[in-house]
Amino acid sequence: MITASGSAIVVGVGPERGLGAALARCFAEKGLHVFIAGRSEYKLQSVVKYIQQAGGSATYVVADITSETSVNLLFDIIQSRNDTIHVAAYNVDSNIPAYFLETGVETFTTLWQQNCLGAFLFAKQLMALMQTQAQGTVFFTGATGSLRAKPPFTAFAAAKAGLRALAQGLAREFSPQGIHVVHTIIDGVIDGERARLQFPEYVKTKGADCLLQLEAITQTYWAIHQQPRSAWTHELDLRPFKESF
Amino acid sequence: MITASGSAIVVGVGPERGLGAALARCFAEKGLHVFIAGRSEYKLQSVVKYIQQAGGSATYVVADITSETSVNLLFDIIQSRNDTIHVAAYNVDSNIPAYFLETGVETFTTLWQQNCLGAFLFAKQLMALMQTQAQGTVFFTGATGSLRAKPPFTAFAAAKAGLRALAQGLAREFSPQGIHVVHTIIDGVIDGERARLQFPEYVKTKGADCLLQLEAITQTYWAIHQQPRSAWTHELDLRPFKESF
Amino acid sequence: MITASGSAIVVGVGPERGLGAALARCFAEKGLHVFIAGRSEYKLQSVVKYIQQAGGSATYVVADITSETSVNLLFDIIQSRNDTIHVAAYNVDSNIPAYFLETGVETFTTLWQQNCLGAFLFAKQLMALMQTQAQGTVFFTGATGSLRAKPPFTAFAAAKAGLRALAQGLAREFSPQGIHVVHTIIDGVIDGERARLQFPEYVKTKGADCLLQLEAITQTYWAIHQQPRSAWTHELDLRPFKESF
Amino acid sequence: MITASGSAIVVGVGPERGLGAALARCFAEKGLHVFIAGRSEYKLQSVVKYIQQAGGSATYVVADITSETSVNLLFDIIQSRNDTIHVAAYNVDSNIPAYFLETGVETFTTLWQQNCLGAFLFAKQLMALMQTQAQGTVFFTGATGSLRAKPPFTAFAAAKAGLRALAQGLAREFSPQGIHVVHTIIDGVIDGERARLQFPEYVKTKGADCLLQLEAITQTYWAIHQQPRSAWTHELDLRPFKESF
Repeated sequence: MITASGSAIVVGVGPERGLGAALARCFAEKGLHVFIAGRSEYKLQSVVKYIQQAGGSATYVVADITSETSVNLLFDIIQSRNDTIHVAAYNVDSNIPAYFLETGVETFTTLWQQNCLGAFLFAKQLMALMQTQAQGTVFFTGATGSLRAKPPFTAFAAAKAGLRALAQGLAREFSPQGIHVVHTIIDGVIDGERARLQFPEYVKTKGADCLLQLEAITQTYWAIHQQPRSAWTHELDLRPFKESF
Repeated sequence: MITASGSAIVVGVGPERGLGAALARCFAEKGLHVFIAGRSEYKLQSVVKYIQQAGGSATYVVADITSETSVNLLFDIIQSRNDTIHVAAYNVDSNIPAYFLETGVETFTTLWQQNCLGAFLFAKQLMALMQTQAQGTVFFTGATGSLRAKPPFTAFAAAKAGLRALAQGLAREFSPQGIHVVHTIIDGVIDGERARLQFPEYVKTKGADCLLQLEAITQTYWAIHQQPRSAWTHELDLRPFKESF
Repeated sequence: MITASGSAIVVGVGPERGLGAALARCFAEKGLHVFIAGRSEYKLQSVVKYIQQAGGSATYVVADITSETSVNLLFDIIQSRNDTIHVAAYNVDSNIPAYFLETGVETFTTLWQQNCLGAFLFAKQLMALMQTQAQGTVFFTGATGSLRAKPPFTAFAAAKAGLRALAQGLAREFSPQGIHVVHTIIDGVIDGERARLQFPEYVKTKGADCLLQLEAITQTYWAIHQQPRSAWTHELDLRPFKESF
Repeated sequence: MITASGSAIVVGVGPERGLGAALARCFAEKGLHVFIAGRSEYKLQSVVKYIQQAGGSATYVVADITSETSVNLLFDIIQSRNDTIHVAAYNVDSNIPAYFLETGVETFTTLWQQNCLGAFLFAKQLMALMQTQAQGTVFFTGATGSLRAKPPFTAFAAAKAGLRALAQGLAREFSPQGIHVVHTIIDGVIDGERARLQFPEYVKTKGADCLLQLEAITQTYWAIHQQPRSAWTHELDLRPFKESF
């Protein structure tokens, strides 16, 4: 068993075959204790169990990332362990495709709350914590829509563009303090549970090779986290080789 | 006196020397009836009075653009006049500078509500209306922060980036239906009441020439509205000649 | 007949139904003497004749815009008239589509010379001249490829991206001196002689409405030239309403 | 001693403490035979010697990357070894700062030839070769100027913007064929021989921590080369943590 020295945080952890869970496993394999947060206790338990069976160490916290109280509680738990946070990922990726006149104010608001406001609440706590450490990496997971708004993804893009600006402002403010802020543009379909449920035909037609494999993504997140601070990346795209862009 | 044939809408109308009021005056001078909306009845009355004294025609509606009910009421009033809406402007520009750890969730949320959610609510009604006309121009007023997040403007930039994505998605969806969607990037300080109150020294040092003059801005908005649909502009910047960028 | 007071320059003037000729006609109609330059004496003569028959004033110069000597001669002729240059347009738009392995070094070089180097040579003379005037507007005509490289237009995009950077650098250096530098992104097919020769089917299928009309483009160029220097636009796109982007 | 299995190519290799040489050493340490090309035989010999003394394998070719003949000769030599090319880097970075009216046509042309045309000539041979392999990674080293033209770097930016477009077009055309095309935006000063000669004061004041360390850059190039093709990065920035952007 690995003795954890230092911790990681992943919020937006859902199904076992999803990016949040994959990032948590990756960080645990590197020897970090991992705090994972999400809405479904069942799914979080399953991810913690998987990590522990593989010899890693993890804690789960059921949290509503769009609620300030809930996020603050999450950080109370994190800070009670009194460990250095080496790396964190805001990995909430909430999308509800709809043409504009069919997009309700609830949808527009929910997408913003989950993709952007939650990142703000998370960053408020995380930056304060990492500032005391004068180190740490934080990833914000973006999407094609972060750069480009197209129907039926206008509401999603408005939220993701806000997230991108947030990440950019944080990088400008906190990088000089030694905190590495990274925005990733996930351009393509992740080969996870969500895609298999939502677009089974697409997944079948394309073949695994044309989807973003979870382990391929986490490999790059880890490599970026390993960058010496003399040459940090703030933004990068990740895309299957056959994806047109 | 000009007989209004066709109407315009400007939301985000505040002080007489502000961009909202200047757009309303410009549209009225071109012979359009102008609906103006904002939060302060006193200010709206003053703008309507000014327009009427100049021989124009205007109606004001006190509205909270961040409330769906309020926006719907605004459009009930607009539609009761049963007139073609030629041009509309979403001109709310709300900014509260703060470094990140001093930015409260209220500030982050308020800036989004005013700069982005309000535009969504406005667009929901407006696009439905303009779709029935198969014509019309709508302007969304952006800022330097729409493209670039920099402390202490991170929260503002997150909201304005969302607005920009919204405008882009609307353009992609509604331009082919004959609706001209424009996003302007106002890069610099507008020579209006707000600047004179907030940065009196800056205004004094720079000289009027280095600020964005209201009439210069409205001249371009009108020129863009006049574009034949065979050559529409979706996005343009507006910047005083000495402004560095 | 209009007495010209002040002059304009358009380089890249080809067929009568092309953007260069349309800009020349537009500037002449506004009362400016127009210097036009291009490679074909026959075409230039025809444009001058058209302008003169409409009561305007124009001079043509056969020039190879990619040759420093030729550009300098053009400006000798221009300066011998000793007139204020109010507006100028670099309108060379040279495109040779080819997939990468079929793109020869001659193609890559020629596209750069015509789209980018020629603009540099032109700007060298023009900026020096406009600097003495402390005024003037210059347009550089860009394209979709200015922002985005896609096969089979990679070589074209590499040249146009260079042109865009040139225009941006010029704006940053010369705007504070009172020279208005504008980069336009022409996104779509211009309804001119070239399109009718190269893509007759496309023109027929789309209908005139879905092509960029010459007069629609020149109307916007002129409106941008009319901007007071307190609110200048550096970059804008122009696109038919049905063009997807 | 490492037995090389597979090769790498680096063009734009100059002083021992420069990015070209560092990339060559990095690729050699990973067990690849490295072909290095540059203009100075003396410098190339010195890099080869260094690599060999460290147990690596390297060949140098004196080449003028802006000459098609010279580039073709380089590839004749490379192909005579009949080895798989795993990774290649176009690392020419030529900059001559000058305000616009002091920028001669020679400067403008030279910067384009070295930063952009050379990349085209290199890519012509490389893509044809990698196409037969159906694999391989190629890096094009960009700069801040790739995204942003600012005096006195307008000519440099025009060249680097062209390079960026070239890399983007290549990615769109060749990624689906299994060739990984990467554009890096080096934003900051590299702590190498050039900076120490050109800006000794800057280097001294900033401290090594605020410069881009060569090994930090090569670490990321290698990590990006290691990406599985299911999640490739096309573009990323590299910047010292204290660099403002």
